[in-house]
Amino acid sequence: MDIATAVGLLLGAALLLISVLIAPGSSLAAFVDVPSGLVVVGGAIAACGIAYPFGALLRTPSVTMKLFFPKAPELKATIAQLVSFAEVARRDGILALENKLDEVQDPFVKMGVQMAVDGTDGELIEAVMRGEIEAVAARHKVGKGLMETLGRYAPAFGMIGTLMGLIIMLGNMDDPEAIGPGMAVALITTLYGAIMSNLFCLPFADKLGYYSKREMEVREAVVRGILSIQEGDNPRVLEQKLSTMLPQADRTLAA
Amino acid sequence: MDIATAVGLLLGAALLLISVLIAPGSSLAAFVDVPSGLVVVGGAIAACGIAYPFGALLRTPSVTMKLFFPKAPELKATIAQLVSFAEVARRDGILALENKLDEVQDPFVKMGVQMAVDGTDGELIEAVMRGEIEAVAARHKVGKGLMETLGRYAPAFGMIGTLMGLIIMLGNMDDPEAIGPGMAVALITTLYGAIMSNLFCLPFADKLGYYSKREMEVREAVVRGILSIQEGDNPRVLEQKLSTMLPQADRTLAA
Amino acid sequence: MDIATAVGLLLGAALLLISVLIAPGSSLAAFVDVPSGLVVVGGAIAACGIAYPFGALLRTPSVTMKLFFPKAPELKATIAQLVSFAEVARRDGILALENKLDEVQDPFVKMGVQMAVDGTDGELIEAVMRGEIEAVAARHKVGKGLMETLGRYAPAFGMIGTLMGLIIMLGNMDDPEAIGPGMAVALITTLYGAIMSNLFCLPFADKLGYYSKREMEVREAVVRGILSIQEGDNPRVLEQKLSTMLPQADRTLAA
Amino acid sequence: MDIATAVGLLLGAALLLISVLIAPGSSLAAFVDVPSGLVVVGGAIAACGIAYPFGALLRTPSVTMKLFFPKAPELKATIAQLVSFAEVARRDGILALENKLDEVQDPFVKMGVQMAVDGTDGELIEAVMRGEIEAVAARHKVGKGLMETLGRYAPAFGMIGTLMGLIIMLGNMDDPEAIGPGMAVALITTLYGAIMSNLFCLPFADKLGYYSKREMEVREAVVRGILSIQEGDNPRVLEQKLSTMLPQADRTLAA
Amino acid sequence: MDIATAVGLLLGAALLLISVLIAPGSSLAAFVDVPSGLVVVGGAIAACGIAYPFGALLRTPSVTMKLFFPKAPELKATIAQLVSFAEVARRDGILALENKLDEVQDPFVKMGVQMAVDGTDGELIEAVMRGEIEAVAARHKVGKGLMETLGRYAPAFGMIGTLMGLIIMLGNMDDPEAIGPGMAVALITTLYGAIMSNLFCLPFADKLGYYSKREMEVREAVVRGILSIQEGDNPRVLEQKLSTMLPQADRTLAA
Repeated sequence: MDIATAVGLLLGAALLLISVLIAPGSSLAAFVDVPSGLVVVGGAIAACGIAYPFGALLRTPSVTMKLFFPKAPELKATIAQLVSFAEVARRDGILALENKLDEVQDPFVKMGVQMAVDGTDGELIEAVMRGEIEAVAARHKVGKGLMETLGRYAPAFGMIGTLMGLIIMLGNMDDPEAIGPGMAVALITTLYGAIMSNLFCLPFADKLGYYSKREMEVREAVVRGILSIQEGDNPRVLEQKLSTMLPQADRTLAA
Repeated sequence: MDIATAVGLLLGAALLLISVLIAPGSSLAAFVDVPSGLVVVGGAIAACGIAYPFGALLRTPSVTMKLFFPKAPELKATIAQLVSFAEVARRDGILALENKLDEVQDPFVKMGVQMAVDGTDGELIEAVMRGEIEAVAARHKVGKGLMETLGRYAPAFGMIGTLMGLIIMLGNMDDPEAIGPGMAVALITTLYGAIMSNLFCLPFADKLGYYSKREMEVREAVVRGILSIQEGDNPRVLEQKLSTMLPQADRTLAA
Repeated sequence: MDIATAVGLLLGAALLLISVLIAPGSSLAAFVDVPSGLVVVGGAIAACGIAYPFGALLRTPSVTMKLFFPKAPELKATIAQLVSFAEVARRDGILALENKLDEVQDPFVKMGVQMAVDGTDGELIEAVMRGEIEAVAARHKVGKGLMETLGRYAPAFGMIGTLMGLIIMLGNMDDPEAIGPGMAVALITTLYGAIMSNLFCLPFADKLGYYSKREMEVREAVVRGILSIQEGDNPRVLEQKLSTMLPQADRTLAA
Repeated sequence: MDIATAVGLLLGAALLLISVLIAPGSSLAAFVDVPSGLVVVGGAIAACGIAYPFGALLRTPSVTMKLFFPKAPELKATIAQLVSFAEVARRDGILALENKLDEVQDPFVKMGVQMAVDGTDGELIEAVMRGEIEAVAARHKVGKGLMETLGRYAPAFGMIGTLMGLIIMLGNMDDPEAIGPGMAVALITTLYGAIMSNLFCLPFADKLGYYSKREMEVREAVVRGILSIQEGDNPRVLEQKLSTMLPQADRTLAA
Repeated sequence: MDIATAVGLLLGAALLLISVLIAPGSSLAAFVDVPSGLVVVGGAIAACGIAYPFGALLRTPSVTMKLFFPKAPELKATIAQLVSFAEVARRDGILALENKLDEVQDPFVKMGVQMAVDGTDGELIEAVMRGEIEAVAARHKVGKGLMETLGRYAPAFGMIGTLMGLIIMLGNMDDPEAIGPGMAVALITTLYGAIMSNLFCLPFADKLGYYSKREMEVREAVVRGILSIQEGDNPRVLEQKLSTMLPQADRTLAA
């Protein structure tokens, strides 16, 4: 589980809540307004519905889950597995990898090993695997883009709601007592939009980008590894090459 | 029909409408002001008229229709058709494709097959087809750019209208009762500009970009397919290569 | 003449004028303030004077004229002329083009044909012609950049003028009657800056960019055509290659 | 120690402090509000917690220390050391460098010399060293990006705090005396956000970028130097090549 | 001397001054506030001190002087000199250029000719000269970047100053007479920030960019010229090649 995402959300929400509760003359009720919430959240979702294909919208909940429970494979473990496969292929022939297929969790590695075992041409293996990487990268980009788009439209609909509230208030100025509360309600949509954008959508988009980049690195290592195995390279050279992708602390350089 | 575009528009419009109707002391009439609409919509169109050539403006209605009724060809069906043509060409010779020309709906595929049947040189086929792709991409870019430009000028003319309303109101402050309604009217143009930009133009531009990208992918597959057919490649290899462009779920990898 | 530029300007100006005239309690006089105009227009010009070399500023009027009376050569006619020259060169030798030089209007085409007739080396022809294209592109970029810069500084000086007006007004609050009109005058510079930027400078910059791109396309076709003529290529192949630069409707593909 | 960072911070803080103290009717107490500080600083940190992985956040204090006590190696001294190593390798053979390893402070230079002494293949040396450079550059980019992200969210949470303050104030307008101080407190979060962003985070990010670029230059020189030593190049040619990376004043061109 | 810079500054300053003096009820004294100036100018300088290394800040005055008294060498004269050197080298041998070295003003040309006379290898000449160009370009980029950074922080500290002024004013609302002047003083920092940014820093940065680009063009011509001389090229071909860098009006094409 991604502790930072959860802690960040809790910290941000707690800070805003507490500062409302300790302020003199304030109450939580003054900050809850259902129609305002509908205009901001619903409006931003409506704009994203127009901007994005339907399928992308349906993936939003699962994309959001990834922020809390990421399932990016570990680069170091993947490299170790690839090197051990290279050793097996060198010692017992590439067909011996068929027995190892059951051990493989990652479907991307599985696909690559299967093609190598089947004797598929190296160029075609690379084309198929890179095509898959590009497809995953495009899907990640849509997920990140949707969060950014929500984060862009939420403040815009916050402003639209405030303008609507101000127009209503300014058209009913007979009762001077109602002016203050009217403006307060009008400002709530702008507040909702700013919070939705700056505490949820935009940081979510940033972290999705971070996970996507890390997953692409692992997949890049897999492609290089499978091709190296298929060509029968020395496992030691493969290890040295792939370990340059690791941070120095995690590296074990066989000098 | 693109459900997401229609649902998004209806949802957004309904939310704004309902939140106006349920607000105490509000009425729909307070939000309707024809001159304000003319300044915002007309001003944004005038600015686009200056910024873009006349032909591009005339295409706007047909561009907008595409958001609801997209006609981008399906990548999967196109690949299947290209593979079946490759099989015919391998079995019966490339001239046998002449009988298939009537089946082809997509004029871009038709043009490619016709050139291949006519024995046109491969390099020239590629130059003509890529020239066509670039021309279509440029046309799409103009359509998307026009929507973005409308979405940029609409809030600007909204602000211009509000400034004009404020200047009029501030010059007539003899009647304190008129100040509130005067400011309310002044703010309507800013509201119109924000809605036009954030519920219509900018999401429209995003979706046009999405459709354009998908159409370019299909056309790229067609170019690769026609060239492969013209060179007499193995239909199986063609299928494997093109299927890397499909999302994994839609793929049928002949191992 | 570019109808769209003229119609856009008239439409935008008419809309703003009419909405001022029909507003109750408003008069055109309330929107005319010469010092405000001087601060916005003069300030933006002063900033551009610092930002750009003197020569670029002097070209502004002629750049503005191009928006109404563009003189970009037609791509289709240019291609037809190049193909006819290629036919002459093929039939009667490249020296026969000397008699055609008087027909040529476009000095860029003239320069190219002259060099080809003079037997200049192909590489040098390309270097000279591309150098000329780059020089023209750089000049266009300065013209477009100047319009964008004016469009960026005009709202900034509008805001400076409004701040100055507010400071004056706030320092003289003895007469409450003068507060409203004082603020009205203060807001006029912001209004002027927004109109200058959004109805004039920024759309002008967009259209200059459009014309520049179209002219570069024509010049690119000329370079390819002249080099093809100099190398004695087949006029039919030249026609096919250049016609891929045309929109499909204008193309006549000799299969 | 980086004098400019320290002087800039002191100067900026002193200016703001003094201008508060000398203003008539002002007191420092009016600018201190702990809950406001918590909303701005805590909110920005919470958003960064969501946006960034946990490890990056933990490195923030050490990243901040680097702004005051940078430890980027000197380009000139590094080049001199590399040239002296090239002379030793030329005169006494590359194995003679083993005795020099103890002199080397910079672990990056040490790693390179060690690999060269071990007779590692030149291509592998380059791959390992460039992999290390990329890893450091990525780590620097995360540090800089975190500062920029803090600098982007601080004003956003400043605005959120001000909106919350305004909503509370507008809901309690019974006591007109409290309106002014209420708004004053509401504005404090915006002030805190602007100061945190413009006096701390954004300038910090700029300087981190500057140090990163300088360190990358030094490391680039090391890679070129080690490869040159490994290939047994002439030390004079190496010196001439590397000295083109120095500013002219620091160069000693052996003509 | 760069007339446009001086005229632009005078025009902008005069416009603002006159519009203050002719406004009814206004006086220059209302716009002068020393602490406000210290917050804006000092704050922007402090932020730049943190963002940039100390050396860059010390170069600011000399960078500003360049805006009024630019010393970029003339492209046309430089090309003429290089061609005349090529003629000498062709006629009397490259060593004959040694006598010409005293004529050369530009140290960059001098360095190139000296290396050519010394018989330095062509590749090394190019590496040294391009290294020097990159170093100068990097120095220019720092100068331009510093002006842009000042232009970005000045309005930010203007806003910080205004927020501070508003907070002080809102905390002292006992005397209604003081509210207006209090807000006027608070707005002065925003005005100062806007003027410093839009009349000074940002246009300065634009013009520095323009001069840098022109100087790089001249140096590029010098590199090509020196290499051509070192290889003993025909002076006529060198002239034709370099003259493609000149605007057409300045060119004398030897057909």
